[in-house]
Amino acid sequence: MFNLRKDEPIWQHWTDTDFYKETMGLLIWMLHRDVPVKFQFKCRTPGVNWREIIDLGRLREEFDAARRVHITKSEQHYLRGTNEYGERMFPEEYLVDQELLSLPQYYIGFSPEGELEMGFPGGWFEATRWEIPALTIVSELVTRYRLSKLSRFEQDALFAEGRLRLKEKIRKLRQYPELMFSDFGTRRRALRAWQEYVVGVLAEELPRQFRGTSNTFLANKFALLPMGTSAHELYMAYYGIYYGSDGDIRQSHNRVLQDWWNLYGQGLSIALTDTYGTDFFFRDMTEEQARNWKGLRQDSGPPQQFIDRTQRFYDGLGIKKEEKLLLFSDGLDVDKMISLHLSLQRTFLNSYGWGTGLTNDLTDNPLFKPLSMVVKLMEANGHRTVKLSDNIRKAMGPSQEIERAKRIFGYTEDFAEDCRY
Amino acid sequence: MFNLRKDEPIWQHWTDTDFYKETMGLLIWMLHRDVPVKFQFKCRTPGVNWREIIDLGRLREEFDAARRVHITKSEQHYLRGTNEYGERMFPEEYLVDQELLSLPQYYIGFSPEGELEMGFPGGWFEATRWEIPALTIVSELVTRYRLSKLSRFEQDALFAEGRLRLKEKIRKLRQYPELMFSDFGTRRRALRAWQEYVVGVLAEELPRQFRGTSNTFLANKFALLPMGTSAHELYMAYYGIYYGSDGDIRQSHNRVLQDWWNLYGQGLSIALTDTYGTDFFFRDMTEEQARNWKGLRQDSGPPQQFIDRTQRFYDGLGIKKEEKLLLFSDGLDVDKMISLHLSLQRTFLNSYGWGTGLTNDLTDNPLFKPLSMVVKLMEANGHRTVKLSDNIRKAMGPSQEIERAKRIFGYTEDFAEDCRY
Repeated sequence: MFNLRKDEPIWQHWTDTDFYKETMGLLIWMLHRDVPVKFQFKCRTPGVNWREIIDLGRLREEFDAARRVHITKSEQHYLRGTNEYGERMFPEEYLVDQELLSLPQYYIGFSPEGELEMGFPGGWFEATRWEIPALTIVSELVTRYRLSKLSRFEQDALFAEGRLRLKEKIRKLRQYPELMFSDFGTRRRALRAWQEYVVGVLAEELPRQFRGTSNTFLANKFALLPMGTSAHELYMAYYGIYYGSDGDIRQSHNRVLQDWWNLYGQGLSIALTDTYGTDFFFRDMTEEQARNWKGLRQDSGPPQQFIDRTQRFYDGLGIKKEEKLLLFSDGLDVDKMISLHLSLQRTFLNSYGWGTGLTNDLTDNPLFKPLSMVVKLMEANGHRTVKLSDNIRKAMGPSQEIERAKRIFGYTEDFAEDCRY
Repeated sequence: MFNLRKDEPIWQHWTDTDFYKETMGLLIWMLHRDVPVKFQFKCRTPGVNWREIIDLGRLREEFDAARRVHITKSEQHYLRGTNEYGERMFPEEYLVDQELLSLPQYYIGFSPEGELEMGFPGGWFEATRWEIPALTIVSELVTRYRLSKLSRFEQDALFAEGRLRLKEKIRKLRQYPELMFSDFGTRRRALRAWQEYVVGVLAEELPRQFRGTSNTFLANKFALLPMGTSAHELYMAYYGIYYGSDGDIRQSHNRVLQDWWNLYGQGLSIALTDTYGTDFFFRDMTEEQARNWKGLRQDSGPPQQFIDRTQRFYDGLGIKKEEKLLLFSDGLDVDKMISLHLSLQRTFLNSYGWGTGLTNDLTDNPLFKPLSMVVKLMEANGHRTVKLSDNIRKAMGPSQEIERAKRIFGYTEDFAEDCRY
């Protein structure tokens, strides 16, 4: 079933990416398309023998094939028809400009220590598109490398285990019919074909609870809701774009909220809170914003602490919790989702963006443990960017810049935990 | 993967049957080809709702399609080239006569009590060929009926479970590299495609321990040893052919051994002992036969009792146990095989003909429990036949005839146990 065709490129479709690349893409295209940026690959899992796993020639072939992918007429139709978060939300000019777009130049190599290094410089509008294809290609090459150590039957048995694990997830989720979740697992999927299988199964087996997928191509294929709002990338780019005094940098955070609201209004108003720590976020969000925005996304740190802070925040403003949505997306598994869901009954609306634990969870075998890989914005507008997050192990940026940011944003968290993915 | 194509018949190849149909077939062709016989289907599992499971029109379609199957040139080549048990063991005339052969008329229906009834009358040479296609078609229709109660994904998950169960079997068997076994599971396989998968996997994963398959078509496909010697059918037919005085009937048993030896000599000299009880078998087998024949097949009753008796038998004649092969084929599972194998170390050679527990073991789910179905010779030469076996629940024949046979063969067993399959 999962015949890994070596004569086909791994990444084949322009929209085989996260939908937020379109929602953020439109904002970038309107306001900041030519800002020079640089994205960079980073693997947070230590001790990976990249030289053994990745053949650079092969990786280059895959990346070059990805660079030949363009948006198709059908993909344009799909995007043109997008009405889920606002009427005909993607203007024609934006879609036409994508026709000319392809993935820009990249560089890849090994560091002297054997780390895989990949960089994606360019104008923000084009360079941003590398994040997902680069991650999915590397993720699939890692899986293929691991599979190559197994016999044909052991490979079959591995996917068999994956199916039974999926069956067990479905069984558990069915017991909580109010629990809504989506697939956020494109970037670190085991294989393209496996994500497609998983999403197709969930669409059939849990049609009411499975709300959608962040993968635009799969949303189209299975007639699901395309999911996704915005990412750290916006805040981090704004850090560079508005780089200057402490005040300029501090204000860059709220500018993201303002620009996003001006563009999409309520439709996509779910804010990511942890770029500079959730404490700062709540100091920064205005009462009007708090009333307007639909909800918040939790992506790092202890979720219960986040819930408590959020509760205090809305309570303090006299805003009804029952009307606000909390979207969780940090290293979820089915038990974590259920326990959060139960703890939130009769308080917040809640939903779950389930990533790596959904699309790269074939087996208990530790040889197949997903790697904690990201492609992050490292520079914008000539400045290094910073992310702090509610888990300091997820922080990014040069240490001097991190220290400055901690000061600027009054960051006082001390939670540190290895990333699950 | 197991796309159940409804536009293809279930039974498609003349040699998709047990190899013993060829080895017995040659004997029948040479000595008794026109003896009138009748085979009959019997399901030993109580309470099966056959009217719900089997659509008679569909069954008729499958049976009629099976009747249109003929031996192909390639299958003739394969049989002509058979050298495993004697040089060019199938004479040309026998192969040519098979060209004209097809499955004869049959009858099917439901009894007033809702039992599935199927009968296969004809000359022995042709009617004997119905046993395996009839069973595999019914067995596959049962599985397809059960699958139809599952969602698409639940079907996938079922085969996933089947693969992991197969993986566990392989893991256990690998710990006993001297344990040799074969596939005897054609007749009650879950699906044709599943047996093919299982046999292909075992050929790859356990090339030294997996000795072959009873399925001629699969032996050819996977370049395995075609396995099979003789069955109760021969003894039972001889009961009818030599029907007469008690002495005639008693002698019919040893005639089978004599005719078989005259035809194949040592190559296929593995005797089934339980047709009229293993006690009788050992009283009947001559010392010369005991020395000549390679070994014995155990197919009913408590295996340890069989081993003890066999040991006494050979010891009493001063014959070396280490040179005799015991082949076990009664409702095996991997643990039973391993425990028998361990208990036989340094005594008998031993091997295992693994049937239903290998090819129809997809899941623990009791809804998929294999049915205990057989197609048995019921009449030969105008007489009802009898089988007693070492487990009186497996006995067959009209009760009056069973009583007579018990007397003739001095049958005193009282072991009774429901059949596993």
